Amino acid sequence: MSNKFKPYRVPTDGDFRLRAIDPNDIPFSEGSEDVDQGNLEAMAKELDKLQNKLHAEGRRKVLLVLQGMDTSGKDGTIRWVFSRTSPLGVRVYAFKAPGEIELSHDYLWRCHAVVPAAGQLMVWNRSHYEDVLVPVVEKWIDRAEAQRRYRQINDFERLLVETGTTVIKCMLHIGQDEQRQRLQERIDEPDKNWKFSRGDLEVRKKWSAYQQAYERALAHTSTEHAPWHVIPSNNKLHRNLMVARLLIKTLKRMDLSFPPADPALKGLVVE
Amino acid sequence: MSNKFKPYRVPTDGDFRLRAIDPNDIPFSEGSEDVDQGNLEAMAKELDKLQNKLHAEGRRKVLLVLQGMDTSGKDGTIRWVFSRTSPLGVRVYAFKAPGEIELSHDYLWRCHAVVPAAGQLMVWNRSHYEDVLVPVVEKWIDRAEAQRRYRQINDFERLLVETGTTVIKCMLHIGQDEQRQRLQERIDEPDKNWKFSRGDLEVRKKWSAYQQAYERALAHTSTEHAPWHVIPSNNKLHRNLMVARLLIKTLKRMDLSFPPADPALKGLVVE
Repeated sequence: MSNKFKPYRVPTDGDFRLRAIDPNDIPFSEGSEDVDQGNLEAMAKELDKLQNKLHAEGRRKVLLVLQGMDTSGKDGTIRWVFSRTSPLGVRVYAFKAPGEIELSHDYLWRCHAVVPAAGQLMVWNRSHYEDVLVPVVEKWIDRAEAQRRYRQINDFERLLVETGTTVIKCMLHIGQDEQRQRLQERIDEPDKNWKFSRGDLEVRKKWSAYQQAYERALAHTSTEHAPWHVIPSNNKLHRNLMVARLLIKTLKRMDLSFPPADPALKGLVVE
Repeated sequence: MSNKFKPYRVPTDGDFRLRAIDPNDIPFSEGSEDVDQGNLEAMAKELDKLQNKLHAEGRRKVLLVLQGMDTSGKDGTIRWVFSRTSPLGVRVYAFKAPGEIELSHDYLWRCHAVVPAAGQLMVWNRSHYEDVLVPVVEKWIDRAEAQRRYRQINDFERLLVETGTTVIKCMLHIGQDEQRQRLQERIDEPDKNWKFSRGDLEVRKKWSAYQQAYERALAHTSTEHAPWHVIPSNNKLHRNLMVARLLIKTLKRMDLSFPPADPALKGLVVE
């Protein structure tokens, strides 16, 4: 099971080619949509159980970082992977373009403010990685500054890991033609117009530059303490399956358990 | 349908007796646990649809305030009412005993920081109402200060309502004996020990004082803009049903809809 992830785990030695990963891959599919759907449902329920233990234990933290081009399915992943968990323990923070106050601080300031607390599973819909994507593509920062940021990000994530957070980073990887279809759908279906922004077309024009910026960022920030996984995401159901399975695998490895019974409570009677 | 809520809606004229409401009531039950469970499941799905529209509309906000004595079921309500919604749009904030920084501000400061943003449905697990319960029971504040706080709370909530927030306030009402059983369960079942705190027994000893503090707070802060409902909660399934139904009724009245199609997008082709 576990080695199925290997081709999609970004190596920590910097030797990584994003284009070597086919966004059409479906390694975690069992070949039937019904079976896959059933598996996803079962995993969503298992995640609920694991998240309950994380909450009960109240000691460790989990951070799931979701990155990907427009329409890559960040929202959909959250909706379906967490379709069975309670909002009590699963939180989502969606990063937008930074505002004036945010820009007056270092770029990790707003991220640090929303890291998960003890017992929480936090999902970041976009993240600090936007600050090594947009500025790189737009050439607002030079190569040296990008390198500095990769290191700062690695240091920041090491702090989180060393203070009890498990960090899971997923890049939802879609193809350029798949994005074209999904954007077109948002234009053609009136009920989806609200999801579309003309800015998305400007970003799309820079597809190659973004793919390259992603490749560099992932190559430099996939570490032993916080590795990146690339999730082939042209197939939405597969994308959900793979993220759910990665999350379950990671949570299981944490060996979560309910806090031990308190022997001092034995025999206590409530009046 | 709607008048079934009436006996549980706290009047705005201050004439309210909490003990007049029986925590064993089950007005929203259809008499069969299976049917009730099916209805709850259907409502959880309907809530998901409504919350989606709230999110898509991206303009208005919803705040659900949950208050109640220990073991009254605030966590359980959140778990089951929102069992089908995505964490994308539903957030939970659990208020704990205030820390040093929080105490160095006015008591509404930390609340204002976590009000829902446009398109969000926020659930407060406990709230600013703790500041007119504990201090009143412990006599840290006198009658005049309590009255001042009721007014401040009404003013604060009016601001929220006037700036686009729908405020729904529910007190989960359990009986003293029901609480005894639930606390005993937390003591007797080792897996539930972690939910139990000895402090809960101290609070339980002041049951009558808390009931009185609740009665006064609800009587003074049930307003036309932000009314209180008392939810009979000895029966957990009924409690969930009633909160879900109240939420659905309120969201439906907001007449939510997907943003209109953008005519300027017609014929646009993605390259």
